[in-house]
Amino acid sequence: MRNFNEHTITDAVLARVGGAGDPRVREISEALVRHLHAFVREVRPTQKEWEYGIDFLTRTGQMCDDKRQEFILLSDTLGVSMLVDAINHPVPEGATETTVLGPFFVQAAPEKQVGDDISGGMKGDPLLVTGSVSADDGRPLAGAVIDVWHSDEDGYYDVQQLDKIGDLSMRARFHADADGRFHFWSIKPAAYPIPHDGPVGDMLEAQGRHPWRPAHVHFMISAPGFEQLVTHVFVAGDKYLDSDVVFGVKDSLIREFLQRSPGRAPDGRTAEQPYFYLHYDFGLKHDARRGMAA
Amino acid sequence: MRNFNEHTITDAVLARVGGAGDPRVREISEALVRHLHAFVREVRPTQKEWEYGIDFLTRTGQMCDDKRQEFILLSDTLGVSMLVDAINHPVPEGATETTVLGPFFVQAAPEKQVGDDISGGMKGDPLLVTGSVSADDGRPLAGAVIDVWHSDEDGYYDVQQLDKIGDLSMRARFHADADGRFHFWSIKPAAYPIPHDGPVGDMLEAQGRHPWRPAHVHFMISAPGFEQLVTHVFVAGDKYLDSDVVFGVKDSLIREFLQRSPGRAPDGRTAEQPYFYLHYDFGLKHDARRGMAA
Repeated sequence: MRNFNEHTITDAVLARVGGAGDPRVREISEALVRHLHAFVREVRPTQKEWEYGIDFLTRTGQMCDDKRQEFILLSDTLGVSMLVDAINHPVPEGATETTVLGPFFVQAAPEKQVGDDISGGMKGDPLLVTGSVSADDGRPLAGAVIDVWHSDEDGYYDVQQLDKIGDLSMRARFHADADGRFHFWSIKPAAYPIPHDGPVGDMLEAQGRHPWRPAHVHFMISAPGFEQLVTHVFVAGDKYLDSDVVFGVKDSLIREFLQRSPGRAPDGRTAEQPYFYLHYDFGLKHDARRGMAA
Repeated sequence: MRNFNEHTITDAVLARVGGAGDPRVREISEALVRHLHAFVREVRPTQKEWEYGIDFLTRTGQMCDDKRQEFILLSDTLGVSMLVDAINHPVPEGATETTVLGPFFVQAAPEKQVGDDISGGMKGDPLLVTGSVSADDGRPLAGAVIDVWHSDEDGYYDVQQLDKIGDLSMRARFHADADGRFHFWSIKPAAYPIPHDGPVGDMLEAQGRHPWRPAHVHFMISAPGFEQLVTHVFVAGDKYLDSDVVFGVKDSLIREFLQRSPGRAPDGRTAEQPYFYLHYDFGLKHDARRGMAA
């Protein structure tokens, strides 16, 4: 095999990757080659544009460290993350819709007790969050594991300012009570631009796009026998709900963050100052793989 | 714009990138989104496979430094580099065919005089290279700038072993003489595996592919008013000519590296030991952009 030209090289590469032992590797490799070559054949990059592409991808990889994942940002801003999410999470009646994980999830979040304040002393409007976790058939899921994380009032996550604040905050792991319920105090999150001082920011600027996400609280919820739920709850009225830079907003995930006066709060605590209040009932989807094995 | 699903998200992203001010940015962004989403929609990656993809690209970027360009290797091994080359370099009668630049080109190669030995004392079979540079209409190109680089007898380039050898070698920049001719001494290069201790090596292994390139000498040749020529001359008889891992071989670029006995060499020098001899006549293509401006 030699003497390839624009019209013969794709079949040559397909023949080569067709030797993959694992059928899934073969399937993905062949599709990658077909779509990648079709893209190149359509846009007909100059040598300089190809070099720019190589450099862009290199800088994207080199921007990544333990606190920054630029390739996830690229996937998010090109709508790929939400597409993969949609493919993997058809949502049955009674189950909560999903959205992107985002780049700020931390595997080892601090374990907290239901009712705790997780703001870590960050300043901002107090926020009470109450919620429940049920199966898609309505049965409460006692002991469900709830990871929660959100930004501060300026739109920054703890991991973006560890140098300044010293420790993880506005982030916790809870276990739902016997009725599948949980609640906690924190501060109200803000809309924020995704980190845009790297290659993804350059891309957004060239595409004439803003880098903002509407304010939201992240939830990741797990219970044995159910698919892990990765989602947000968005703040109703946010001006970026219709132009989320990562295409993550769904109407079913928007809630009013209600303003409440000082006094007795829904969790029985007495609030000394005005606060915001969010309630959300989450529904988890039975794990189809387990269902089939049963 | 919200509530995107598998079927609606692509149009939403296209609408967003359609706001790019520069028409070429818009064209490339739209094509990227269409082809990338089509790839994802076809292979339907699991969340774990998507994570693997993110990690693969991240590791590919992080493998790059001033001596290693893993994204060029990825482009080369997926046939993209040769496709981009074919698109940009249709070859008219009288002009030399092109092939990949590869990852071992160095901008600041040592300037040498025609006739010099560029082996830098590396051991191997002596090699005399003679050549000429002409326009595609046959006119010799006096003063053409010729960059040349090749591997040692074990298949390694200078930049892969700078710690050991201390300086660039088997690499030089020449200026063709008044008749467009040049010659130099070096050592005969060997077939070699591309660096395969990184993500690209993992990919090749998963695809059941070897990482080898047939032995060759790289040439990059420039003259005012002509397109820069980037090519190799391959060693006839090499066992990897039909399975070059980067799809770079063309019959017109293969030459016998002739074995010669000691004695008077074609450049007039007396060889004390047996040596190999390569001759190649290069043809440069008129720069169409200049042609149109004239």
